[in-house]
Amino acid sequence: MRQKLVKNLQRLLGKEKIHSAPEDLFCYSYDGTFLTGTPAVVVRPSSSQEVAAVVRLAAEENIPIVPRGAGTGLSGGAVPEKGSIVLDLTAMHRIVEIDTENMLVVVEPGVVTADLHRAVENKGLFYPPDPSSSPVCTLGGNIAECAGGPRGLKYGVTRDYVLGLEVVLASGEIIQCGGKTVKNVSGYDLTRLLVGSEGTLGIITRAFLRLLPRPEGRRTLRADFPEIERAAQAVSAIFSSGILPAALELMDDVTIRCVENYLHCGLPLDVEAMLLVEVDGPAIALDEQIKYIADICTRSGAVRVELPRTPSAAEELWRARKAVSPALVQIKPTKISEDATVPRSRIPALVRAIKDIAQRHRLTIAIFGHAGDGNLHPNLLVDKNDPDEMDRAAAATAEIFHSALALGGTLSGEHGIGLLKAPYLDRQFGPAGVAAMQRIKKALDPRGILNPGKIFGRS
Amino acid sequence: MRQKLVKNLQRLLGKEKIHSAPEDLFCYSYDGTFLTGTPAVVVRPSSSQEVAAVVRLAAEENIPIVPRGAGTGLSGGAVPEKGSIVLDLTAMHRIVEIDTENMLVVVEPGVVTADLHRAVENKGLFYPPDPSSSPVCTLGGNIAECAGGPRGLKYGVTRDYVLGLEVVLASGEIIQCGGKTVKNVSGYDLTRLLVGSEGTLGIITRAFLRLLPRPEGRRTLRADFPEIERAAQAVSAIFSSGILPAALELMDDVTIRCVENYLHCGLPLDVEAMLLVEVDGPAIALDEQIKYIADICTRSGAVRVELPRTPSAAEELWRARKAVSPALVQIKPTKISEDATVPRSRIPALVRAIKDIAQRHRLTIAIFGHAGDGNLHPNLLVDKNDPDEMDRAAAATAEIFHSALALGGTLSGEHGIGLLKAPYLDRQFGPAGVAAMQRIKKALDPRGILNPGKIFGRS
Repeated sequence: MRQKLVKNLQRLLGKEKIHSAPEDLFCYSYDGTFLTGTPAVVVRPSSSQEVAAVVRLAAEENIPIVPRGAGTGLSGGAVPEKGSIVLDLTAMHRIVEIDTENMLVVVEPGVVTADLHRAVENKGLFYPPDPSSSPVCTLGGNIAECAGGPRGLKYGVTRDYVLGLEVVLASGEIIQCGGKTVKNVSGYDLTRLLVGSEGTLGIITRAFLRLLPRPEGRRTLRADFPEIERAAQAVSAIFSSGILPAALELMDDVTIRCVENYLHCGLPLDVEAMLLVEVDGPAIALDEQIKYIADICTRSGAVRVELPRTPSAAEELWRARKAVSPALVQIKPTKISEDATVPRSRIPALVRAIKDIAQRHRLTIAIFGHAGDGNLHPNLLVDKNDPDEMDRAAAATAEIFHSALALGGTLSGEHGIGLLKAPYLDRQFGPAGVAAMQRIKKALDPRGILNPGKIFGRS
Repeated sequence: MRQKLVKNLQRLLGKEKIHSAPEDLFCYSYDGTFLTGTPAVVVRPSSSQEVAAVVRLAAEENIPIVPRGAGTGLSGGAVPEKGSIVLDLTAMHRIVEIDTENMLVVVEPGVVTADLHRAVENKGLFYPPDPSSSPVCTLGGNIAECAGGPRGLKYGVTRDYVLGLEVVLASGEIIQCGGKTVKNVSGYDLTRLLVGSEGTLGIITRAFLRLLPRPEGRRTLRADFPEIERAAQAVSAIFSSGILPAALELMDDVTIRCVENYLHCGLPLDVEAMLLVEVDGPAIALDEQIKYIADICTRSGAVRVELPRTPSAAEELWRARKAVSPALVQIKPTKISEDATVPRSRIPALVRAIKDIAQRHRLTIAIFGHAGDGNLHPNLLVDKNDPDEMDRAAAATAEIFHSALALGGTLSGEHGIGLLKAPYLDRQFGPAGVAAMQRIKKALDPRGILNPGKIFGRS
């Protein structure tokens, strides 16, 4: 059975694009979560037509297809279904066109996000979405999961930059929705329906992404708060000021300590929280804005406010923020990264709830994230070989979800539902909401071959 | 049959909310296009529960429902199907909550857009979408059609501000998608699928809309160009400068003359085009930015650049832009307003194509619109009682659509497909794309009772 599948795929795409050795399959058996699953075969197509050919074959044979970029996802979206075809899209990594006049870019799904950043910044342009995994993650994955990142506060998330997509449907047909225009209301918004659909409605084979002019300048500050509530008050006060920062990041004491242990970069060990605030825009306005925000932080109870004087000193602050994930895995081998998201004013309540949950379940939970977006990343630091700890982590995770929903929030701000949060979907949407989504899934993928089990759970 | 329907509706909602006199039906028989259709009955519900009750009744009896705000739409989206129930949502016009801390607002669908603008601006906040009909149109209609407006260039369109919706499905079930968080990737993006779905997938009964801090200041300029190509060059040059204007509007000679005849406000009659450019943001940066743009216009060949010195003088310029629609109907009784949209660099080619089409079909076509977005409004000025002229207008309209698509554009930038553009949908999406949309329609509205005929055409 598997032999025949491999042979058929080899005939379609050529031998060198099909991988089925046990060591190959192992390399594709996981993503950024602790979940695993072994596929039947891995395919690395190099064109939309090849993707379509694989999908048609899978449709005929009723074999599940799991599309995959760099596998950095944090909800299990790229974890293979047993016996599935993994469609590794990283060989389709061309930046097809940088259209400076129309401020947009056409890319294949395997382009690494940071490569796009560099390519467009060289031309004075700017692609805002910047998930922390940007040095390795791919745009196809960013789009399929609707990735966010620190700049979401001012600039929105991946969804806000996708003008159009070329998509291979479950039938193997190739369609284009949206395109090179910044305004487009022709028919249903298939583009945004596909964004964040986690590979369950179609395979993205090309994307048209909107760019902005690169901001003329940026200024950053770090503010240290003895109590996390005061940091949250500062966040509210900054918003009331009328200044919209480009980023407004929070790190709690657990996170600060981990990063300081890892980088030795002089982070404060005597406080409960620090904020990292960045403003960008016309250079002439920035000094005034960042000083104004510094004053707000001081008035809100910051014990220190640091204003780096050079771009490289500012870069150093961001290096600390970006080192959070690698720093945390030094504490415990398994890091369960959540993205509970609430209306921004409920951040203090969410932080209190998470700290209480950590204590009750005897777990270390680091809290950091995009405070300006109400989007926190409670990271449960555990060991997946300790079944008792994993049980407590599962209970704590469920309680974090419930807290976020009870505070008017959502299950996921930027990581997606994947497999990890699928059991909780109906708590957020109720049976009628979930049923509406399932009817859409059934309409576009009647055989259920596209990334089955994701979002709705394994049946 | 109709009597029984009226009686049933009266029993559900009370007599005063049901209108079925011929003069009532007449008032609801049209929208902003020249199309008409007479419904069986008009219902003005005052709650989501009442909307749900009407939808359940319609589902049982298989009667089409046509949701309607102020009826200002320009593609026929609110034109009643014969024998339908018109659901007039203007009685649900409460601003439920202005949440300043989370910078969002919760509204019912019948709130007039300009009323929301005023209400939030009083609190130092800002709701960017500003379709020209904002003094009368409603937010429910804006969302259902994904309305745009001049500020789309910098701030995006309605879609970019809808955080969540309460929706009555075709089954009569009430669901909520999205909500009070600015980041949200839980399950399929039903919110954005509903935005722009023209009442064909669900009835919007409540919306959560994102707000921004009100920009500290704004500056406007008018630049007059002897040739429209030079205006288009200026648009490109402005984009290359790295400044992102809040608005960048074009008016051609026909439009300028109509407005000047109407307002006598001193517009230039000796040029082929004028640009209206606005920048906004931190006050300290604005003078420099607007002077920089003035220089670009001069270098690109503007014969005059006017920089109003006071906010009221700037307001006067915007008054001229907003008077375009009433001014144009003074020329001919019927105004067919299109919204051909292309990648912004193709604006000169689109203008040339439209001028050629006007000449060949012996029609007066005024061209104006959001040049920065590539979104032009060719307005065909005709008389619907002149069948020959209407035939030529139909031929010209089709050619404009084809030109826009051939230039890499879209059928509709901000007016929607409605009835007017439905015959052209498959030229943009091909059979597979249209079929995918129709499967979604069928999945969410299996009986086809929600605004039938819109987007896909009358069968």
